[in-house]
Parts: sequence; C-alpha cells; structure tokens
Amino acid sequence: MPVVTFQPSNKTITAPSGTSLIACAKSADVAIDAPCGGKGTCGKCMVRVVAGTVDSNSLGTLSQELVVDGYVLACKALLLNDDVIVQTPQRTGWEGGKFVEALNEECLIRRELMPDKWEFDPLAIKWMIEVPPAGLEDGLSDFDRFSRAIQKEWGPYEVVCSINVLRGLADTLRVDHGKVTVSLVREESRIHVLRVEASDSTVRNFGIAVDIGTTTVAVQLVSLEIGKIIATQSDYNGQIACGLDVISRINYARQPERREELRSLVLKTVNGLIKKTTAAHDILPQEICNAVISGNTTMMHLLLGLNPEYIRMEPYTPTIMKSLYLTAAEVGVEINPDSWICLSPCVGSYVGGDITAGLLCTDLATDSAEVNLFIDIGTNGEIVIGNCDFLMACACSAGPAFEGGGIDCGMRAAIGAIERVEVDAATGTCQYWTVGGTRPLGICGSGMIGLLADLFLTGWIDSAGKLNRNSPSPAIEISGRNAYYVLVPAEKSGTGKALRINENDIENIIRTKAAIYSACALMLKQVDLTFDDLSCIYIAGGFGRFLDLDKATVLGLIPDLPRAKFKYIGNSSLMGSYMTLISRDYYLRQIELANRMTYIELSTDPSYMDQYTAALFLPHTDATRFPTVRPVKK
Amino acid sequence: MPVVTFQPSNKTITAPSGTSLIACAKSADVAIDAPCGGKGTCGKCMVRVVAGTVDSNSLGTLSQELVVDGYVLACKALLLNDDVIVQTPQRTGWEGGKFVEALNEECLIRRELMPDKWEFDPLAIKWMIEVPPAGLEDGLSDFDRFSRAIQKEWGPYEVVCSINVLRGLADTLRVDHGKVTVSLVREESRIHVLRVEASDSTVRNFGIAVDIGTTTVAVQLVSLEIGKIIATQSDYNGQIACGLDVISRINYARQPERREELRSLVLKTVNGLIKKTTAAHDILPQEICNAVISGNTTMMHLLLGLNPEYIRMEPYTPTIMKSLYLTAAEVGVEINPDSWICLSPCVGSYVGGDITAGLLCTDLATDSAEVNLFIDIGTNGEIVIGNCDFLMACACSAGPAFEGGGIDCGMRAAIGAIERVEVDAATGTCQYWTVGGTRPLGICGSGMIGLLADLFLTGWIDSAGKLNRNSPSPAIEISGRNAYYVLVPAEKSGTGKALRINENDIENIIRTKAAIYSACALMLKQVDLTFDDLSCIYIAGGFGRFLDLDKATVLGLIPDLPRAKFKYIGNSSLMGSYMTLISRDYYLRQIELANRMTYIELSTDPSYMDQYTAALFLPHTDATRFPTVRPVKK
Repeated sequence: MPVVTFQPSNKTITAPSGTSLIACAKSADVAIDAPCGGKGTCGKCMVRVVAGTVDSNSLGTLSQELVVDGYVLACKALLLNDDVIVQTPQRTGWEGGKFVEALNEECLIRRELMPDKWEFDPLAIKWMIEVPPAGLEDGLSDFDRFSRAIQKEWGPYEVVCSINVLRGLADTLRVDHGKVTVSLVREESRIHVLRVEASDSTVRNFGIAVDIGTTTVAVQLVSLEIGKIIATQSDYNGQIACGLDVISRINYARQPERREELRSLVLKTVNGLIKKTTAAHDILPQEICNAVISGNTTMMHLLLGLNPEYIRMEPYTPTIMKSLYLTAAEVGVEINPDSWICLSPCVGSYVGGDITAGLLCTDLATDSAEVNLFIDIGTNGEIVIGNCDFLMACACSAGPAFEGGGIDCGMRAAIGAIERVEVDAATGTCQYWTVGGTRPLGICGSGMIGLLADLFLTGWIDSAGKLNRNSPSPAIEISGRNAYYVLVPAEKSGTGKALRINENDIENIIRTKAAIYSACALMLKQVDLTFDDLSCIYIAGGFGRFLDLDKATVLGLIPDLPRAKFKYIGNSSLMGSYMTLISRDYYLRQIELANRMTYIELSTDPSYMDQYTAALFLPHTDATRFPTVRPVKK
Repeated sequence: MPVVTFQPSNKTITAPSGTSLIACAKSADVAIDAPCGGKGTCGKCMVRVVAGTVDSNSLGTLSQELVVDGYVLACKALLLNDDVIVQTPQRTGWEGGKFVEALNEECLIRRELMPDKWEFDPLAIKWMIEVPPAGLEDGLSDFDRFSRAIQKEWGPYEVVCSINVLRGLADTLRVDHGKVTVSLVREESRIHVLRVEASDSTVRNFGIAVDIGTTTVAVQLVSLEIGKIIATQSDYNGQIACGLDVISRINYARQPERREELRSLVLKTVNGLIKKTTAAHDILPQEICNAVISGNTTMMHLLLGLNPEYIRMEPYTPTIMKSLYLTAAEVGVEINPDSWICLSPCVGSYVGGDITAGLLCTDLATDSAEVNLFIDIGTNGEIVIGNCDFLMACACSAGPAFEGGGIDCGMRAAIGAIERVEVDAATGTCQYWTVGGTRPLGICGSGMIGLLADLFLTGWIDSAGKLNRNSPSPAIEISGRNAYYVLVPAEKSGTGKALRINENDIENIIRTKAAIYSACALMLKQVDLTFDDLSCIYIAGGFGRFLDLDKATVLGLIPDLPRAKFKYIGNSSLMGSYMTLISRDYYLRQIELANRMTYIELSTDPSYMDQYTAALFLPHTDATRFPTVRPVKK
C-alpha cells in the first residue's frame, strides 16, 4: 500500500490506493479544513503534493497554475499506488504564527482579578497523613484507618474512592509505616480520594486547565503546590476535519458512531497536548490529579459523547449544563484515572463554560456595581452584560467570516494570510502585510476589517458595502452587475491566482459585525442602558487579539467609545479555568455566576431583527452613534 | 494443534502439545480440583481420557488398574499431537447431585424472618416519571428537567448519574413525550440513576442475589417488582483450580497478575450463572439493576482485585470491610453497567459478608432477647452468638476435612461419594450408599461423620480415634504401628483401589470437629453462659444440609442438646442477600448487625488452646457434656 507522509508534521500512514488525501490526513491525525464537507467547492483543503503522484482528475476550484505547482484539493485527490509526500498549510499554533508568542495570557488579566494568596486553595489538594498501623483487635480495615486519618484532618466527611485506589491501598500503607500522601477533592459532604502515594510527595501536585474551542484547544499545566503555570500548549481541535463551526459539527454528529469519532478526535488533541506539556517538564500524566475544562456547550457535549442535536433544534436544549462529578477514566482524559474532571458550567445552548470561565477574568465576576460588557468574538459571538446585581447573556451567530469562512479568498491567520492593509485614498489600491512575510495566500479576519474600514473611510465602498463604480480605480474591476476589489494580482499571489474580494464577501463581513453589534445594543436596551453607561468592554477570544479598535469602530463592529474602555483579555476561557483549578472560591463563584445569569434567546425577541437590520450599514444607519467615524464622500 | 474436548460439559479448546490437561481445563473453564498445586501427590485431579492419547509417563499416585482404564492425573498428563476427549468428574451442582433438588432455600427460613409486605422496598426501584418538554426560555437542560421530575417524587435528593446514562437521556426523553421509567437507588442524600427507559417499563425490574463461596457460587434472579425469586443457579467457583481453601487462594494471589486471574475466574462463574438464569426466563442481563453480593472477606477481596495478603498475616487486616458505592462496570459484573453492586459488610478477616447476610435468616437479627448460636460449617467455621443486646463472632480454621480434603480417599459430595454408612456392631464391617448410586470413588464429609460415629458407638474406635487393635475385624488392617479401616475393597471400588481410612484421616476429622465445638464453647464461656442457655442453634452452609445431628453429636461436633433446638437454614448467605436486595430495612439492619458485632480473634485467647485440646476426644474429655452418647466398650 502506498505510504503518505504529511509535512511539516512528518506524520506517516499507509492507505489503500483510491483513498482520498483528506481521509489519509484524518487517519494520520493531520487537521485540514473542509468546510464544504468534501464537495470540492470551497477550495479550503488545498495541499501540495511535493513527491509522488496522486489521481487529481477532479480539479475542483483550483487554477491550472496551482495544479502545475503540485497543488490539489485533498478532498478530491485520490491515492494511486505511489508513495507521496504532502505539504499541508502551516499552522499558526506552532510555527511562526502569532499564537505562540502570545500564550502568556496571564498578563492580560488585571492582577487584582486573579486569585489572591488567601484565595489560593486548589480543588485537588495533596496532603500527607500518617495512618496508624493495623491492630489485632481494633476491628478496623486498612480503609477504616485510612478514612479516619483523613477525617482527623478534614472533619466528618464521607471518604470515598475507586476500586483502583483501593487496590493499591494495603501495600502503599505498608511502604513507609503508614505515611502516605493523599490526593483529594472535597465535595459538600464527601471527600474523593484520587490517588494514594507512599511517603511525602506533596510537592508534586499538578493540575491542568483546558480550553476546548471549536477551532483551537489549549492546555495549561499548573503546579497546584504553588499555583504556578508551568507550560501552555495549544493545537487545532482534531474535530476540524468534521466541520468548521459548531453547527456543522452537530450535523456531523447525527449518527452515534460519528459522535464517538468526534469524541475521540478531541480527546486525541487534548491528550496529545497533555503529553507534550508534561514530557517537556519531566512530569508524568499520572501525576495530574485535576482538570478544569471549559468550552462551549456543543464542545462539552462532544467531549462527553452526548447527542448535541437538540442544541441546534428549537427550543435549543442541551442535555446537561452543570457538570456531574466525572473522573478522567470516564471522560477519557489520559491523566491519573481517578482524577476529577471539572467542567465549567454552561448557561444555555450557546453560552457555554468558556463564557462562565471567561467572566472570572472580568469585573463582571466581582462585586462591582459598574456595568460592564463582555464580548467573545469567534464563530459564535457571546455577549454578557451586567454588574453585581444582574447578569444577562446572549449568543449571536456571527458566522465564520472573521475566521476566513464565507470569504472567497479568506483564510485563518496562518502563514501567508494578509493581516494588515493600507489603502491609498487617491487610487484605491493597497499595500498589505502577510503573516510570516511570505507571498499572500489569502486574507484573514483582521485583514478584512482593516481593508473594509480603509475602503469605507476613503470612499471606495459606501455605507451599504458596495464598491465605488463611479470613480475608476485600478483595484476595482467591474463586470456587468458585479464588482471586485483586486487585493493581489495573480502574478504576486502565492496561489498563482489573483486574490479578489467581491461584494458578497463584504456583505458577509457586514452581517457578522451587525450580528455582534446589534446583540450588544439589544441587551443594553433591555436594561434601559446605552453604550455610554458601560464602564468597560472586555474583548475575549483569539480573534480579539488582532483587532484594530479604530478600524473595528469604523465598521461599526464595536461601539464608538473611548479606546481606554476596551480591554482585551485573551483566552479568558483558559485563564478562567486556571483560576478555578487553583481556587475553590473561584470554582464556587463560577457556579454562582452561571446560576444568576439570564440567558436571552435573541431569535425570540422581535426587536432583534430591527436592531440587526439597522446595523447592516457602515458604521450604522444611525450615524450619530459613531461620531468619530467620518468617511470621505467620493 | 491438538483439540481437547471435556465431557460432560463438551467444552473444547486447542492447545500446543506439551500443555498439561489441568492447564487445558483451566483455559476451557472446566474446574478440576488440584489442592496439591500440581505436584501429582494428592491424586484429586484424576480425569479419564476416553479418546486419543496423552503423555502420562508420570503416573503420580494412580494405580495400574486405573491407568489401564484411561485415568490420568490432569496435572501430570501432557498433550501430544493427538486430539483427546477427557471425562471430568461429574458435579453435584448440576447433575444428579443434591444441590439442585434443594435449591429452594427460601423454605428453610422461618416465614416471620423474611421481609414482610411492609418491609418490601427494594434497594433499586423503578419509577415512571413524566418529564415536562423543553421550553425555549426556561433555561433548563434535559438533565435539569429530568432531575426536577425525580425530586418532585422523592424530595430534595441530589440526582447523579453516569456519562452512560447521560448519553441516552436526550433521545429517550423524546420517545414518548417525556414519559420515562427510571431505575434508581437512594443513598442518604443522593439518588443514583442507573438506567432510563422510554415509556413505562416498571414491571420489568430485576435484581440478583449472589453468594460467592470459596467452593460454590450461587446466583438468584429476583423480580424486584414483586420480590419473587425467579430462578437460582449454582456452580463451582472458577477459582477452585487455583486452590481449594481461602489460604491457598491468598497464597496464589501474591502476584498482581494472579490476583487479576482470580478476579476474572470468579467473574466468569458469576457472569456465566447470570447468563444462564436470565436466558432461561427471557430476561436480558441489562435489565438487572442491582446485585447484592455476599461472601467471605477473602472472596470479596478477590472479586474486587484487592490484595488479600494481609488477611492471612497477623494482625489479619482486610483492605476493606464496608463496601463503597460500586457499579457493575467497575466490578466487572455483566448486568446493566451502572447498576449498583452492593457488597454485604464484613466484620473481620474471617467473618465476612456471608455471615452478616446469613444472620438475617436468624433470630440474631431480630429484637429477641433469647440467646442464639449461628454456625456456618465450611472450610472455615464461623460462629456467632448473641441476642438483641450483644453479638460476638469468631472464626475457626476447620480445615477442608468435611469437604474431603486431608482425607486419603476423601472427596466432595459428588457422584460416587459415599455419603451414608452403617457399621455392623459385631463384625465392624459396613454397608454404604453413594451419591448417584454408582460404584464408590471416595467418601465425603457426611459419610466420614456417619462412619466415625458408628465406629465409635460400636467400640471399633476409641475416644482418641484409634482403631480397635484388640478385637479382630475383617474391616481393620493392622500393619506395624499403623491401622486402617477398609471401607471398600479394591474389587468393589470405582477407582480400582481399596478405599481405606487411616488414623490420620480420623485425626483430621477430630481436629475439625474440635475446632468448631471449642470455638462455640469459648464464646459461651466469655459471656458466662453454657450450651443449655441457648434457645436455638442455626446451622448454615451447604455441608449442614447432610449433617446427621445424632451422629454429629456422637462425635462431639455439636453440643448434646434436644434436636428441636437445631435449625438448618441452608445457604443463608444467599437468602440474606436476597432479603437485602428486596428490602432497604434489611439492608440497614445488616449494616447495623455488622457494626455491633464484636470480632473475637481466637488465636489471641490463651484459653482457646485448652478448650480445643479438651475437645480432641470423642465426644469430649468431659463426657458429662454428652449424656446421650453411650459408646459400647469392646
């Protein structure tokens, strides 16, 4: 059977001839986007065959130039009997991208929002106890004496443990005269024993904070002895190959065997990251006694193998929102099998644990009376507004435009993506900068926002997003009723094809920004407030990092407020998980936040459509809302 | 590879030549005794090769006649390249024996000791609930609505379930408009959901009571809807091949992989019986939502894969005595995976859950002030004395003599075992009756007791157990300092060899009876009572069924009391498990019994040795204790 090697990861598999490259990539655990589901229409699964031959009779949307260069669509290229080497697009997460440099999320959170010294109290603690030796006539079993020793320290909790722990107990107690170190978790009335080691091993107490995003998974290894973050690693969610956004994942998950596939894919990603972080620091995965995992409601369902179908269908009901007591072995996380897997509580089908975790990184989780807004911009936009007295949350379907989806030459912020643009006001042409400084392959969300803001300010598009057909520009091509903005001519493009933006693409961006802005506006209206009443706007999520606030204001994505009111807090889902991991206070606070949050279902609010329609202009139909935005008329 | 077929079970395996038949039997799951551990010295693993040839150069203890007939020692016979058919000794449990006929243990228990109508309240119940449909704005997950529906019926319990149950919940709720049947177990403050089925399936609620004996395992299938016993099945414990008694099992279990072997052997037996009982009544194992399992402390350790070593070593400490909340999946019992496996509580290393279960079948578990004695006669004798005010328990190492161990021609009460004997007073010769009416192959415990009692009463053995050397008898052979009682001459024996009892054999029986009697006597002495103060003596255990009380009194095994005071209660461990299964009251009563029982370690009581030594005579050194026993002097 032919051997397929994927670069740059050097992952290798063999597969029978006739297998598609995307199927090979899937079994080799190499993530390739395929939002169209393998129909050959989206062109996003383009890879380059650098050695060997494949059967690529179906070119799909590829141009002849690209084909000559060895590019094929992975979904349409089938193995022959030839060994092949395949180059896949490089990943921001690990090479030359932006993720890696900025992984120290801690510094994005205001110090006083982090758990304080007296709040440091990890969910899973390690405690050295001395269990008295067995006596001939005390009538006590090993477990009796062991539980009493724990109760002596902690009070009259019921002590419970798994068969696993019991199996080692008798021998472990006898290694060092009854001196053992217990890893434990306290519930209201019971103590779960997670692990028992001989002698004193209290200094080696580790936990992980995990953020499972639809696109990216991040794992943070934490020393629970001192609360220090030892390492953070992230990778693309292995489920990407089964659909880019939550809705396509939910659709994919219809059959039980596919739910099982999705479950094992995300576990593979999580477990791979655990192995990586622990191996780099000479820690064994078995030394990890607690994991706090946050993610949106769909990701949590897929992690547990629950049927997510009813999340998608009215009345949008998740199977579960508050987590049960689950162990690592049950969930499939490869750490100490009896470790507690604590899932951040969800609030609704589209406001998940990533949001309740994220709020811990904001004043919305404190007793501040000032009203704050929290926006997590991703494929779904989640918005929370409130203070110590009220909390309201909603979700809007932003769509994948900011991640390059639904844009003809759109792509994620990977190597070759145009991330910054400057438009020449006079000619309408532009200068651009790509991630990694390479030839451009496409444009990512921040590039699009920059481009459209500039085009709008300089009058090359109007407030409806239509390209200027009156003033001629070398960058604007008119073809019948259609108009295109030529970002990169074919001869300068890394794909061999011109990179062009059409008016559909622009509309997609406008719809996305309108969804987010109108959701915020509606929430404020519901509590009779305006944007001016907000004390701070927290922006969370990977996309927010590259958001140019001025340009986002020009488009009307964010309100026209003093820049100082905006605060970017990074991957707050991960940081919130970290806070919960090291502080029972924060764990309880998060549950309390989830409980008192009111979930607003936008689709049922008749005024949402009005708000949304009003926001489908640049910056807004009501220009007075954006006093600092003054476009030139051409 | 040669094929080995075992008869009568018709189990077949293939194994490489050179494999011993006992290893073949083990992997074919055919139990053959091998108390000597395969050294070829005990001769107990005799089987007959009825087709094909094996390498049986090592004859071990077999006579030439037997070898000619095809008999070999399974531990010494090795496979050649020939397919073979091997006959193994027939089992009392399932064919022609006595077990089967007498499996209706229920009738042995006094009706008023069984759970009454108002005590019928199974640990695992099934309840039909109606879960309201999901609403768009109630902010409730499926699990939220489901838990509330349970709490509405049962009160403010915390509702918990496994991922398994959660995975099916969303779909099951939507099959019949929220109408579901829940299998659940109530703990103090939480309800465990074991299973959720659509619509009303409350009539199909099943549980099992299990007794795991060192020798025999019994499974009772029970309808929890009405408390009816549907079927009872028993089989030899698959661990027998690894040692006959608890001490040899503990020795065998030293290495972790052997613990795992023992664990899977007993599970195979239990699961096999579950399959048998359910299949015969068109019930699926998955419909069983609760199991109550009783067994001695070692059996419970081996079932859970715990290291039993410290049970054997002073100060005799079990890992655990009171059971944790365990699920079927954790334990490995093949019923509904989330079912609760409730283990009867143990009191000490040698007073286990079989005893606390057994006590439920006696007045010792009621509020009676009359003092009663409970004796479970097996390889270990367990004795409990008490009333509503006090409970004392002890165990004595009776040894395997009553089960045929340590007796030259001893065997279990299987086909061919001499079970009844009548000695002619004048000549000393005897008539005998075998199980199944076949040619005699050996003598079982009840046969030995009958034989010795008769020999003693007729003066052919003296009170020290020595054979009469003064009066000549055709049945007594004197050879130097040794004397033998010839039970069956070679020509009438099914083994081709004479069945003879030597004075060592007699000593073994005397030691066994002395251990039991003296333990009872010591316990009474400790509370300043005598046998005459006892209101009732309960005799439990398979052996007790065939015990001739008169003959047992002659030997001094049981006290010389009016026969009406003795009550045989059969497999009380199984019946007690049944009571617990169908009644929460009894479950709590059993825990309370275990808690208030004082465990007496005989080996630390200096006066035990005196009591024991005094009992090493027939019937006792103090003959006034046995006024009705009047042996003839020869």
